[in-house]
Amino acid sequence: MVKVGVLGYGTVGSGVVEILEKNKDIIAKRVGQEISVKAVLDLRDFPGDPVEKVLVHDFDIVANDPEISIVVETMGGVHPAYEFVKTCLENGKSVCTSNKALVAAYGPELLALAEEKNINFLFEASVGGGIPIIRPLKTSLAPDEILEISGILNGTTNYILTEMTEKGSDFDSVLKDAQDKGYAEKDPTADVEGYDACRKIAILTSLAYGKQLDFEDIYTEGITRITDRDIAYAKKMGAKVKIFGSSKKVGDKVSAMVAPQLIYPEHPLYSVDGVFNAILVKGNMVGDVMFYGQGAGKLATASAVVSDVMDAAKHAGVNIITLWDAEKLDLVAAEDARNVFFVRVSGIKAQKSEKVKELFGNVKMVDAGYDDEFAFVTEEMSEGDYEKAAAQLDGVINKIRVDQTGLA
Amino acid sequence: MVKVGVLGYGTVGSGVVEILEKNKDIIAKRVGQEISVKAVLDLRDFPGDPVEKVLVHDFDIVANDPEISIVVETMGGVHPAYEFVKTCLENGKSVCTSNKALVAAYGPELLALAEEKNINFLFEASVGGGIPIIRPLKTSLAPDEILEISGILNGTTNYILTEMTEKGSDFDSVLKDAQDKGYAEKDPTADVEGYDACRKIAILTSLAYGKQLDFEDIYTEGITRITDRDIAYAKKMGAKVKIFGSSKKVGDKVSAMVAPQLIYPEHPLYSVDGVFNAILVKGNMVGDVMFYGQGAGKLATASAVVSDVMDAAKHAGVNIITLWDAEKLDLVAAEDARNVFFVRVSGIKAQKSEKVKELFGNVKMVDAGYDDEFAFVTEEMSEGDYEKAAAQLDGVINKIRVDQTGLA
Repeated sequence: MVKVGVLGYGTVGSGVVEILEKNKDIIAKRVGQEISVKAVLDLRDFPGDPVEKVLVHDFDIVANDPEISIVVETMGGVHPAYEFVKTCLENGKSVCTSNKALVAAYGPELLALAEEKNINFLFEASVGGGIPIIRPLKTSLAPDEILEISGILNGTTNYILTEMTEKGSDFDSVLKDAQDKGYAEKDPTADVEGYDACRKIAILTSLAYGKQLDFEDIYTEGITRITDRDIAYAKKMGAKVKIFGSSKKVGDKVSAMVAPQLIYPEHPLYSVDGVFNAILVKGNMVGDVMFYGQGAGKLATASAVVSDVMDAAKHAGVNIITLWDAEKLDLVAAEDARNVFFVRVSGIKAQKSEKVKELFGNVKMVDAGYDDEFAFVTEEMSEGDYEKAAAQLDGVINKIRVDQTGLA
Repeated sequence: MVKVGVLGYGTVGSGVVEILEKNKDIIAKRVGQEISVKAVLDLRDFPGDPVEKVLVHDFDIVANDPEISIVVETMGGVHPAYEFVKTCLENGKSVCTSNKALVAAYGPELLALAEEKNINFLFEASVGGGIPIIRPLKTSLAPDEILEISGILNGTTNYILTEMTEKGSDFDSVLKDAQDKGYAEKDPTADVEGYDACRKIAILTSLAYGKQLDFEDIYTEGITRITDRDIAYAKKMGAKVKIFGSSKKVGDKVSAMVAPQLIYPEHPLYSVDGVFNAILVKGNMVGDVMFYGQGAGKLATASAVVSDVMDAAKHAGVNIITLWDAEKLDLVAAEDARNVFFVRVSGIKAQKSEKVKELFGNVKMVDAGYDDEFAFVTEEMSEGDYEKAAAQLDGVINKIRVDQTGLA
């Protein structure tokens, strides 16, 4: 019998307790022994909820219970999650977390501590919710040098962009609708500004290359500047607007970014719509591999946490190797990253196209039928060169990077 | 230093040797020690190939080398692969194989032997080539009761159906083209008749439910009867024809089948085209999860084999639990499986539609503009009831099952 402590009885934490109960028999069979929840820590009370029997309000009860060998951390936030997790690891308990903020900030330290203690620090649910991605990256794709990762890593923004595309609605009204439906938070900043996706691509990239990529170092652009006109242009181009967290190997360095991207039907992520997430990984041997599923949600995310609990139970006293050093990953400077840009400009095309050619070279014009603006697509150029050229062109309204994946 | 023996230096076997050499450093770092190939068994000689230095023609050299702790089996075919693998396991060597025929036929026996010896029998590459699916099913999806699996499991047939759809060509000319390009074998029977997909869905289903599903017991229908007219109807319906290996839980039993399916854009596998494969798994907690990638090919498949070699190296002396008993899975009889059918009938609609309604009840007519035939879609009915009704209707040309996934 393996005994588990759960820190935080919110959406994911209560999902973990539910799965461990509902799928108890299957889980016991697959692990080789029963797993049961001995204590759930939360500040709140839950009158009438069966959790009452194991509910505690004092962290020390979990931390000092020698029977509890695995702790689930589903409180969210960096503090006191970090202090709690560290104490549990120091006390010899494996920890399974869904907390991307914690993992992005303290991954290497907590992994090193787990290794030292011959226990495990696992975080499948921190990226992609129920989508298996962390474990496949550590195991299935381990023979490969990772060349590129592109992910639709945030369900809220993918839902908003999908609705804008399908209904032609503007950002604000779709956001309001998403909030009403519970797909977006009251304060949607972390999602719509790309901060959530940023932490997730930081985790994936750190794992892929075995060194720390600080999320603060990743150029991050949200979707708040995407308008119905951008969407109309995208349709005209036979493309869709998605927001990607992405990284790729460039020589000995790695380039990483969170930003909206125009993608074509040939891109494996093109048909990933609504609240679904997906991650495309390119290995130097396996080629393109894609993982798709629910990137959030109580039971999907909790299922990923429970898969870690089962792994921790099967690896009692054995550290599962996870390469992620505290040493910093060598990052390509944001201005040196190379991209293709779709650019919208206010004014009359005939009057500005000479200037556009002078500044951007060989471009392809895109006409979506507007009289007061025009648009073009550049060839591949550095972010720095783009910025320099754009600064000299009057009336740039917006730019969106164009992902060429799948195009000949 | 871990020493590996490779049985069979064909496409996949030579890919394994290539990856272990090319990605040697990454692999050593991730496993914690170097992995090198000590012997490669093949009947042929390979003059000038570096493999010559380790090439052997006698199986006993591999089987009896105490330094070789992991054996890769990439010979294909059931015999003598089975005898060789069994001997290696009996001699205490873990075995990693890409051989679906072997796994489908002898999985439970070889797994039991590996468990008894505290070693491992691993077969990630036997299904979906480079796509991680076997390991995720055993680990990431372990908390879940598996409700349904649908897979595009064969690249040759997916390529043929994609070409027929995109170019409007007929089956025979596309098959010839696929053979010229090396996407189809000279004798394409195993692919186009669905036998290859059948072994793969047998393996996935056996793993999902922990009991043996004999591939001979799975109703299997290939794509040889699909014509350009079927494709034209599919387009008219806004659908595509794909061939799925699929299984699902029905009460306490499991229903399994290989057959062409009409699927709609809402289906997560709709945009999986060309030689790509993908597998959709529905868990009772995680919901829909999809895995996509190259289902065949030298390096993709070899990458999956090497991921198993790395797992075997990390689990020296520790058996990775794999539930797959020899006991037979309780299968729904083929005639009791329930499906929606698209049916084409020769003759004039006006003259036969009364009879169609009498036999099939509430159907939806589909008009693709042909004068000499018509078509309809049934409501859900059992395969047995469909056969009875179809037998009483003159001039049934073809039927294709309709997968309703994603439709409201």
